[in-house]
Amino acid sequence: MDKLNNKRVAILATDGFEESELFEPKKALEEAGAEVHIISVKKGEIKGWKGENWGKCIAVDKIVDEVSHSDYNALVLPGGVANPDLLRTHKNAVEFTRSFFTNQKPVGAICHGPQVLIEADVLKNRKVTSYCSIKTDLINAGANWVDEEVVCDQALVTSRTPDDLKAFNNKLVEEIAEGKHELQSA
Amino acid sequence: MDKLNNKRVAILATDGFEESELFEPKKALEEAGAEVHIISVKKGEIKGWKGENWGKCIAVDKIVDEVSHSDYNALVLPGGVANPDLLRTHKNAVEFTRSFFTNQKPVGAICHGPQVLIEADVLKNRKVTSYCSIKTDLINAGANWVDEEVVCDQALVTSRTPDDLKAFNNKLVEEIAEGKHELQSA
Repeated sequence: MDKLNNKRVAILATDGFEESELFEPKKALEEAGAEVHIISVKKGEIKGWKGENWGKCIAVDKIVDEVSHSDYNALVLPGGVANPDLLRTHKNAVEFTRSFFTNQKPVGAICHGPQVLIEADVLKNRKVTSYCSIKTDLINAGANWVDEEVVCDQALVTSRTPDDLKAFNNKLVEEIAEGKHELQSA
Repeated sequence: MDKLNNKRVAILATDGFEESELFEPKKALEEAGAEVHIISVKKGEIKGWKGENWGKCIAVDKIVDEVSHSDYNALVLPGGVANPDLLRTHKNAVEFTRSFFTNQKPVGAICHGPQVLIEADVLKNRKVTSYCSIKTDLINAGANWVDEEVVCDQALVTSRTPDDLKAFNNKLVEEIAEGKHELQSA
């Protein structure tokens, strides 16, 4: 596969990311030819979460203060209960996320990942899904929430849980391959 | 102290409750003379969270399906990132919470605890605080959010973090001692 040759993708995450929701999209994007960077709010390593305990760690490539949307073609936000809860309290992480929308670039978010989209205020009238616990927060933020394994609305790709990863990854690769979407906006 | 003699208080929580935010209010309420029950969505024990790891467990007195607001004079919702995220997905936990509001009874919620109040749809025009990460979700749910160690609006007592526990507990005891508040509503 070389669908994503010459594409660079940022995965934004911190401690408590749902292990499979970072590693599996990363693998799928790399297998499609993309260069993937792990971006975080801290240097060093970030810790995954698996089931009822901490899981695998991964090295951070760059902290969010050092990067711009212009360095990347697309953004991916994994879930995990703690990860987006922490990310959304970092102004630069929220602004970095928002900048992908204002520059019409594809964004994927799964599980609790869309909490960062609430904070970035990019959900008005967007069709999305998420983990069920944050459904009300997404609706209150202006989104049109649906219960489907993957939802794609103008290059915003969302899914509910790790069980949806195959569909999420396929749609993500497709959208990133297409490039900028004129109707992706904030 | 006998301020809360003959008062029964429900603490609603599940796995991932912030350890201090359950044990310290429980102690303060009991020292003031209240009988305190741990109510959960599962039988057996629930696990606390402390710092970066699981903390102390506590036995569940009753599951939420077995109780009614009429069994209690007041409700307390501890935080922890995972605990209210899980509680809000249980219809009976959300309805139990809402019933304290529709029956004018005091409710305390700290840290991420107010996520359950979003789900219970009881925050329109209520003055509250919370952990900073969920501020936007509370505002989007109709609340008037302020950054104070303890906020009391017609028997709804809220605080931000474990650092606020002393002020939270004092205000909670005071409100529960006063009993029903005519202006507490849903």
